[in-house]
Parts: sequence; C-alpha cells; structure tokens
Amino acid sequence: MASSKHIIRLDHIGIAVKDLHHSNDLFEALMGKSPYKSEYVVSENVMTSFFRAERSKIELLHSDDPENVINRFIEKRGEGIHHIAFLVKDIEASIQDLKSNGFEFINETPKKGADNKIICFLHPKSSNGVLIELCQSIDPEK
Amino acid sequence: MASSKHIIRLDHIGIAVKDLHHSNDLFEALMGKSPYKSEYVVSENVMTSFFRAERSKIELLHSDDPENVINRFIEKRGEGIHHIAFLVKDIEASIQDLKSNGFEFINETPKKGADNKIICFLHPKSSNGVLIELCQSIDPEK
Repeated sequence: MASSKHIIRLDHIGIAVKDLHHSNDLFEALMGKSPYKSEYVVSENVMTSFFRAERSKIELLHSDDPENVINRFIEKRGEGIHHIAFLVKDIEASIQDLKSNGFEFINETPKKGADNKIICFLHPKSSNGVLIELCQSIDPEK
Repeated sequence: MASSKHIIRLDHIGIAVKDLHHSNDLFEALMGKSPYKSEYVVSENVMTSFFRAERSKIELLHSDDPENVINRFIEKRGEGIHHIAFLVKDIEASIQDLKSNGFEFINETPKKGADNKIICFLHPKSSNGVLIELCQSIDPEK
C-alpha cells in the first residue's frame, strides 16, 4: 500500500452554496468564527470562503455562472457537500500510486486551486460516489 | 458567538456504502491503511468502519435493513458523503448555543453513537443542506 506515506490529513470539506453572503453568516454562527479568507479561484471560476476547524477547514464554494460545475451540482442535488480533500506530500506520486490501485481521475494533471495548493480530483465513480480532491501545498511551509 | 468555544475539530466524515467489504478494500487502497476499527451502532442499526487521517476520520456506514436511513439515503442520492461531524467539548451547551442562533436539530437529546461518543444531528435544512453531527467523547481522555 504505497499510498500510506502520501496522505497527510483531511485538508477540507467543500460545500456548494447558492448565496455566499448568507452561507458565510450561517457558518460563522455554526463555527463561532469568521472565515479566515475569501478567494476567487480562477481555474474553477468559483468564489470561496474558508473556515478553520483546528487543522481542517470548511470551504464554501459559489459561482455566479449558472453553467459552473458548482451550480450544476446544486441543480442536480441541492446545496451541500461537494467534495472532500486530502492533503498529500507529493501529488504526482499519489496520482501514480492511486492509478496503479485502479482509481480514476477527472484531471490527472494538477492545476492551481485555492489556498495556495495544486489540486486534482478523483472520479467519484471509482471512489464510492465521493468526489475526492488531492491537494499539495505549493509552499510546504504554509 | 458563544459557539466558538465548543467546536474542537472536524471529527469525521460519514460515507454511506452499499457493500462494506468492497468499500473497506477501496478505502484501504485510497488511504494506505486498514480500518482501525469496525463497530455496530445499536442506536442507528448500522455497521461502521473507521479509517484515520491524522486527527480526523473516515467512517463508512452500512446497513442490511432496506428501511434504514443509510439505505434510504443511498436510494435517493446514491452512495456518498452522508454527514460530517464536529467534535465538541460540551454537547448540551453547543445544542443550546446553536438553537439560540436559529439552528434546528433532528434530535436534541444526545444518543449513544459510534466511537465512544454521544451524538446529535442538526437538520440539514438549517445548515445549507449539510447533515451535521455534533459529537462529544464519553471518556474525554480517549
């Protein structure tokens, strides 16, 4: 099981929302703290807000584009959990390892994501219906 | 925001599965490790498997009863993420605090859950479609 050395921790849970302002207030009340950052992610055309829960995070995801994947998800399933993300040490090694274990990827070439990370997504059909992101810090010190 | 002092961390992500044996193998390959425990939860009539990812966990949930909430979830939405759980210090205080902030609960009286915890669930209609569990360790040392 060569993948064991790659997963560092559960980095975040991504939640698809219709109204970012409303959901920021809601998660602020739930978690007792303000988002520590909001960031526009160019590669996904989504606006995000991040809340910390110790070393893991909640990432709210919103797009104004009705054709965006977040809104297509909401249209199909309603607001809710969109993906979970594991922080890995070496995303290329993890991709190769997981491919050799039969996992399929939506994108095998990592792209720039939010929160100073490069990211890729496993296809949920190979992972029990769960959309799983792998992410690696661009600057490991952060 | 009185709730700030209650949430300790993201404790686990619960994933509804059809075939626990298959999903144990799948998550073992994904996470590079075996489940650290399997436990039958009487209050929910579900069998669970737990995988660690640093201080958070993945909980696989399965029931043989077609009428069980896990199977009703799978029938409606397919296999996938069923809930997320926040570990809190004092579940009664958290419930009162969140109720005063407008959150609704499925069960306001905590019940015995898996993993040596007492648990309750917020209603997803008050939390952006996300089924949120609060859990408190019965033995805080564990």
